[in-house]
Amino acid sequence: MARALEEIFRPAGCAIVGASANPSKAGHQIVANMLAAGYEGGLYPVNPGGEAVLGLAGISSVSAIAGLVELVVLASPAATTAAVVEDLGHRMDARADIKGIICSAAGYAELGTPEGRAFQEQLAGFCRQRGIRLIGPNCVGIIDTESRVDTTFIAGIVHARGGISLASQSGALGAWLLMDWSATPAGRVGFHRFITVGNMADVDIIEGIATLGDDSRTKVLGLYVEGSPEARRLVEAVGAVARTKPVLVLKVGRSDDGARAAKSHTGSLAGTDALYEGAFRQFGVLRVASPRELSDGLRAFDALPLPRGGATFILTQAGGPGIFCVDEMSAAGNLGFPVVTEATKEAIRRSAPAIASVCEPEGHADITAAAGADHHVDSLEAILRDDAVDAVIFITVATLFLDLSGMAKKLLDMLAALRVEGIDKPVFPVILSGAWVLPCRRILEEGGLPTWDSPERAVRALSLMVERTHSTERVRT
Amino acid sequence: MARALEEIFRPAGCAIVGASANPSKAGHQIVANMLAAGYEGGLYPVNPGGEAVLGLAGISSVSAIAGLVELVVLASPAATTAAVVEDLGHRMDARADIKGIICSAAGYAELGTPEGRAFQEQLAGFCRQRGIRLIGPNCVGIIDTESRVDTTFIAGIVHARGGISLASQSGALGAWLLMDWSATPAGRVGFHRFITVGNMADVDIIEGIATLGDDSRTKVLGLYVEGSPEARRLVEAVGAVARTKPVLVLKVGRSDDGARAAKSHTGSLAGTDALYEGAFRQFGVLRVASPRELSDGLRAFDALPLPRGGATFILTQAGGPGIFCVDEMSAAGNLGFPVVTEATKEAIRRSAPAIASVCEPEGHADITAAAGADHHVDSLEAILRDDAVDAVIFITVATLFLDLSGMAKKLLDMLAALRVEGIDKPVFPVILSGAWVLPCRRILEEGGLPTWDSPERAVRALSLMVERTHSTERVRT
Repeated sequence: MARALEEIFRPAGCAIVGASANPSKAGHQIVANMLAAGYEGGLYPVNPGGEAVLGLAGISSVSAIAGLVELVVLASPAATTAAVVEDLGHRMDARADIKGIICSAAGYAELGTPEGRAFQEQLAGFCRQRGIRLIGPNCVGIIDTESRVDTTFIAGIVHARGGISLASQSGALGAWLLMDWSATPAGRVGFHRFITVGNMADVDIIEGIATLGDDSRTKVLGLYVEGSPEARRLVEAVGAVARTKPVLVLKVGRSDDGARAAKSHTGSLAGTDALYEGAFRQFGVLRVASPRELSDGLRAFDALPLPRGGATFILTQAGGPGIFCVDEMSAAGNLGFPVVTEATKEAIRRSAPAIASVCEPEGHADITAAAGADHHVDSLEAILRDDAVDAVIFITVATLFLDLSGMAKKLLDMLAALRVEGIDKPVFPVILSGAWVLPCRRILEEGGLPTWDSPERAVRALSLMVERTHSTERVRT
Repeated sequence: MARALEEIFRPAGCAIVGASANPSKAGHQIVANMLAAGYEGGLYPVNPGGEAVLGLAGISSVSAIAGLVELVVLASPAATTAAVVEDLGHRMDARADIKGIICSAAGYAELGTPEGRAFQEQLAGFCRQRGIRLIGPNCVGIIDTESRVDTTFIAGIVHARGGISLASQSGALGAWLLMDWSATPAGRVGFHRFITVGNMADVDIIEGIATLGDDSRTKVLGLYVEGSPEARRLVEAVGAVARTKPVLVLKVGRSDDGARAAKSHTGSLAGTDALYEGAFRQFGVLRVASPRELSDGLRAFDALPLPRGGATFILTQAGGPGIFCVDEMSAAGNLGFPVVTEATKEAIRRSAPAIASVCEPEGHADITAAAGADHHVDSLEAILRDDAVDAVIFITVATLFLDLSGMAKKLLDMLAALRVEGIDKPVFPVILSGAWVLPCRRILEEGGLPTWDSPERAVRALSLMVERTHSTERVRT
């Protein structure tokens, strides 16, 4: 039986073959990323000249490394495959410690040439023979923020821990999401694991999904999928994960042209999109429409409690954006407006400026631009205390009269105090807008609350959470 | 006949009543914004004590100002209306120079109280009697980057000139867009005029629309609309503008709940949404789905040439994001994939790395992560030179191997050289992603080319442009 992919995420000792002192080479960035991730095992740059990389002593072969080497990352050209395999063969004969190989280099079967296919088969055949798991070739690599491993050559990733894991059939798409998290107000989004599978010579996307699904530190799983010749097995693997934790899938190839492009990209047979759509629905898998929605949904699931249902109150300080949000909520399909008690309405009125418009229509309060920090936080508290409310979308536009940063701190304190009382509902702060509001958003995000720059993003993330609540209930009953 | 609103945008002399030395007051920020805009006329802070504001001498009444005062901005409390009207009356008796009043203060008819209505009627009645135009009360104000006027109290606006104008029935929504432009990679988006109308005691949204429509410096008009008791007149005014320039409308109240919220906000009867939808379609008005789409569309129309049609080539360096873009294009409804000549395909192959996938499917080339700056720019040039191509979506993910900033400069040079030859087609650069790519995006934006952080945003902006092309053709034929 093949060794579990799981072990590859926490290797004792890692060799980077093709490690380079030249910062424009992938073999340089991989070493830099392992260091940035804080990898604590032995880290061995391997190159023909034994050149040092980023202060680490270089060595000319893997077989010459004295310490344990459980993972080998290949960043050397495909044409060196024979020599690499020979070196690794010596290593296995002598030490037999290598559990996994991640081949980042391109130039293998994806070229469609006999030579590329031969290089790939040489590498894959060696791995099969020696019981070594192979990720790639032509993949971006893996990250594990707990074991502090980052074998990717993506620059600018921030290694923050969290409950999100991500598996992607496209290296670029995965890289995009991870890099984009560096541009959030807090400058980072916590995650646990990341895997791309490239040419899938051994480890395929299905095994990647199953492994992240079984991982106890993964709270929510995000997938980018183009398709698989084994479509049924793929959707069943995704469905199996969805039984225990939320799974968000961006599946492309919705259109005929998109399916053709996917086939040309990874050779995936996208299959009829309707097949995937039906199966995802059946298994309670959450399908997202875009990379942004995938990212937004993952952040919401990781950071916020699951709402009991879709009864969502809009608390807004800004008229127009609030009305736009009402429209978006109505279009979501699974969200509705709660009717709070008269006591709650009275409490909102007491907490808000006199000109506030409270519950006209129901489930909506416009506390107007006259609202200060206390007005915002006290109204929100009154709303969260009402039993009819499952979730709140909280919209504010920066005005001169509003101490935005003070509001952010009060809001976090209030939510913490409510949690002590057992009241824990998702709140989606939509903080408008631009560079001006970044300090406020940073305080909220560093306090564990994701923020949004437009109401429709919050609405869509909440709608996914409510979909999860309902599908979990279906399974339970 | 009422004085043209047009004149209010370029006043000779401006008094700010309620100007304050306290930075947390609107009457302070308005003076700061006029200074930041670079207003060159006489600027007069007016307050009871004659207190200086931001280095400008204060004065205790408008009637005591020696210079010309064509515009008065009121930031003083509604309760001072009687005193203000008396002062302005003296001024008009003596000088008769005031053409417009912008009342930023709240506390008028929007309160729904007899007192609020009385204050508003006192102010509006005075204006009617004296032939002065009144914007507001309870509005955010106006901006004109050409005459360097900014009477708003929005902090953080960057006054860059461009062809976009914006009229909004919600101050907050308009402020949101303007503030958000400060967070673009270049830190600014050029625009010409901005108007919010607040309680519409005199100037209503319809007159605002018509005035910006007639303005020759306005190349594209953006509107946020909640509705009007005169719905027919409103859509006809919008339609009249659409005959001469593109108009993008965010109309809320699509849902029943949204319509109720709009009624509660500005007392607008949103009317059946179908009425607006049908009329917008009939008049060739472009309806957008969100503030982000409004902003994206406005930027595209201002910066890019109108495409001849919807034949759009996707040039991507990233597989997954490219396939996602194919799906989005297919969903747009009015975009298609051009079949370029064999000569063009050969030119793309020559310009791209050997492993590039060219025109499989048609209208799509994946030049892969191996592509350098020249590969990107040369492929793009070959595509733009093909007669079958109306527009290009250009997607790239930052890799180590790519000199992103060098690519940006080459790309701008290449587009400029093609324009000299008479080839001028819209190109939508989607630069992925995060903080890492901001320098590249900044170069492109400062060179006049908007950039996008996700393919669907570019697709939607392009789709609006193609819709405009088709509706203009309908009118011509």
